[in-house]
Amino acid sequence: MRTRTGRLEALSDGIFAIAMTLLVLELPVPRGSRHLAEDLLHHWPSYAAYVVSFVTVAIVWINHHRQMDGVAIADRTLLELNLLLLLFVALVPWPTGLVSEYLREGDQGSTAAVAYGLVMLAMAASFSLTWLHLMRKPELVEEQLRPRLPVALRRSLVGPVLYAGGTLVALVSAGAAFAIFAAVAVFFALSGRATAGSAQAVD
Amino acid sequence: MRTRTGRLEALSDGIFAIAMTLLVLELPVPRGSRHLAEDLLHHWPSYAAYVVSFVTVAIVWINHHRQMDGVAIADRTLLELNLLLLLFVALVPWPTGLVSEYLREGDQGSTAAVAYGLVMLAMAASFSLTWLHLMRKPELVEEQLRPRLPVALRRSLVGPVLYAGGTLVALVSAGAAFAIFAAVAVFFALSGRATAGSAQAVD
Amino acid sequence: MRTRTGRLEALSDGIFAIAMTLLVLELPVPRGSRHLAEDLLHHWPSYAAYVVSFVTVAIVWINHHRQMDGVAIADRTLLELNLLLLLFVALVPWPTGLVSEYLREGDQGSTAAVAYGLVMLAMAASFSLTWLHLMRKPELVEEQLRPRLPVALRRSLVGPVLYAGGTLVALVSAGAAFAIFAAVAVFFALSGRATAGSAQAVD
Amino acid sequence: MRTRTGRLEALSDGIFAIAMTLLVLELPVPRGSRHLAEDLLHHWPSYAAYVVSFVTVAIVWINHHRQMDGVAIADRTLLELNLLLLLFVALVPWPTGLVSEYLREGDQGSTAAVAYGLVMLAMAASFSLTWLHLMRKPELVEEQLRPRLPVALRRSLVGPVLYAGGTLVALVSAGAAFAIFAAVAVFFALSGRATAGSAQAVD
Repeated sequence: MRTRTGRLEALSDGIFAIAMTLLVLELPVPRGSRHLAEDLLHHWPSYAAYVVSFVTVAIVWINHHRQMDGVAIADRTLLELNLLLLLFVALVPWPTGLVSEYLREGDQGSTAAVAYGLVMLAMAASFSLTWLHLMRKPELVEEQLRPRLPVALRRSLVGPVLYAGGTLVALVSAGAAFAIFAAVAVFFALSGRATAGSAQAVD
Repeated sequence: MRTRTGRLEALSDGIFAIAMTLLVLELPVPRGSRHLAEDLLHHWPSYAAYVVSFVTVAIVWINHHRQMDGVAIADRTLLELNLLLLLFVALVPWPTGLVSEYLREGDQGSTAAVAYGLVMLAMAASFSLTWLHLMRKPELVEEQLRPRLPVALRRSLVGPVLYAGGTLVALVSAGAAFAIFAAVAVFFALSGRATAGSAQAVD
Repeated sequence: MRTRTGRLEALSDGIFAIAMTLLVLELPVPRGSRHLAEDLLHHWPSYAAYVVSFVTVAIVWINHHRQMDGVAIADRTLLELNLLLLLFVALVPWPTGLVSEYLREGDQGSTAAVAYGLVMLAMAASFSLTWLHLMRKPELVEEQLRPRLPVALRRSLVGPVLYAGGTLVALVSAGAAFAIFAAVAVFFALSGRATAGSAQAVD
Repeated sequence: MRTRTGRLEALSDGIFAIAMTLLVLELPVPRGSRHLAEDLLHHWPSYAAYVVSFVTVAIVWINHHRQMDGVAIADRTLLELNLLLLLFVALVPWPTGLVSEYLREGDQGSTAAVAYGLVMLAMAASFSLTWLHLMRKPELVEEQLRPRLPVALRRSLVGPVLYAGGTLVALVSAGAAFAIFAAVAVFFALSGRATAGSAQAVD
């Protein structure tokens, strides 16, 4: 099956949008609180996790968007790899909730941060797999963009490597690991800016 | 009413995307756990149910997508059969939650697996009904694809038969039934690959 | 502001799809049940409410779809009336949850059914207001469809009248009122079929 | 990266639609109530908060829509500012839930109203930032609309100023602050009508 990417993009945009918006359900609305200001401030990991997850998924969306712009036709494997990516995107609210609840609680915090890191790792690795597939089937990509495929693939591998490292750190310290996950989001936002400045359509 | 399929596809893509993303709400975020790693591992049926339901709905989306690509005009009946399909797609998070909660619990597990099987059966049967309708009104389908309609209908009947069988097995063993539901997803993913390889647009 | 209807339809389709899919969150996933089959069967009003609400919103979506097909340009008032309609569409899961919980419980059932009737009444009345506006500004509608506007408006008034009646009945009997709400859905589905058969694009 | 605005609008419409529809989850569905009518009426702040939040997000959507109609090409910064706006749009159900729960409860009410005001302030300020960016890079905007950019920017600053004022009032009185937030929604709806009447495409 060779297909236009239109409806795949519609499903993808839907799942990205919903995953980003469901994150809000992890934020604290305590019932019957007598000290609401303190209770809300006490949940600061929830807000940090909301922002880091939202920004991370948004960056994946931007990169997915730029990748799809360069795809001329989608074959079955690309479709399946995209659905694999979406499976992990849709999963993001779950470890976000775990981190919101447990970030500051010693061993449980480590478990939560490991779960967060593994989901992010799986999401980033799925995205690298789509680049790997495109590099092996360059005929799926607009002709003028094919020479850039090796750069795009190499760049996309930074994500999995950083998330694997962050997950290992999480075994020791949840806080340090979460700081890495936040830094990864900032790094990709800034490096995206840099490459955007040089007006490359595929990377 | 004869209508372009554009907005029907938009509504469908929305409902598929939301149903696939709401599945995440069934995953465990225990409150105040002292043994988070064990608690999370203990809920392995939740993750299995998430993956099987996500993949199953994704396959139905792919097949729906391919069907719609071959539809030239949608009449009222096709619109209604599509909404019936969407009614069951939107329902999927419910039996997924039941299976997540009860898969390992004897009689309750059987009940949960029967509910899961019945919803999947209804979803698959609705999809077969859309093929049946197209076969009875071939003028709705692109001309060059009409000869393939009998094959498409016959193939679409495999789903309901397998889900009916799985539901019967669920009366005896929840675990065996869930293994069948997982196998059906894998089977359809692989058989979709095979037919995709032969580049058929409708099947 | 005169605007193409494209993005209004995208927002509308999104809200319709999400409202239809959020209904699933009202279905029972009991925790720690020892008699799951009985517990699930005991919640039959939930399934009935799911189906009636899903079908009702689906019919409003079909009618909204057909209306928009006939609109050449959307002015500010039409945009606002559409957002009013969407405000009530998005509200549907709330009274659906109330009816699921209370349908069989005497006075509380009446309250739930009144809330259901009022939301449906407000949704149906908003839709009639859009027809009223189009009849007063026929220049917004495709020329060949303008003669049909009075019929469309008159027909759209059947909904608010039936829901007002059902809401009054709810004061006396929740069950009878809910049967009316279900009958309205069936009636509109069938009458939609009839008019669809005569191939009218606006009604 | 210069990009067509199509997929950005798709993601935006998705997030707007989902944020507007998730508001319904904050409405009360009490379990086992013996006095449902009183219980539901007692939660009137929930309904008020639903309507004010829905209308406010709908107005932001209209303004976003009108802005995007005038944008010829989106650069990376505009994309990022849009995602910042969406981050706060997706957040709206959270303070809406807080206000629903605490509006009438003295100090906790103040906290809830401050949270509401801050989220609305951040959302409105993000939107002003997009106008500021467009004024500094007028080449992104359709040529005939460039002269109107200063007016559009100035007008967009009314929102942040009013929300900042409302947030200060919230420190003293939650009720007065919420009345301001409701009045802002009405004011923007009416002023949008006025400018719409003069048929300006960007403002």
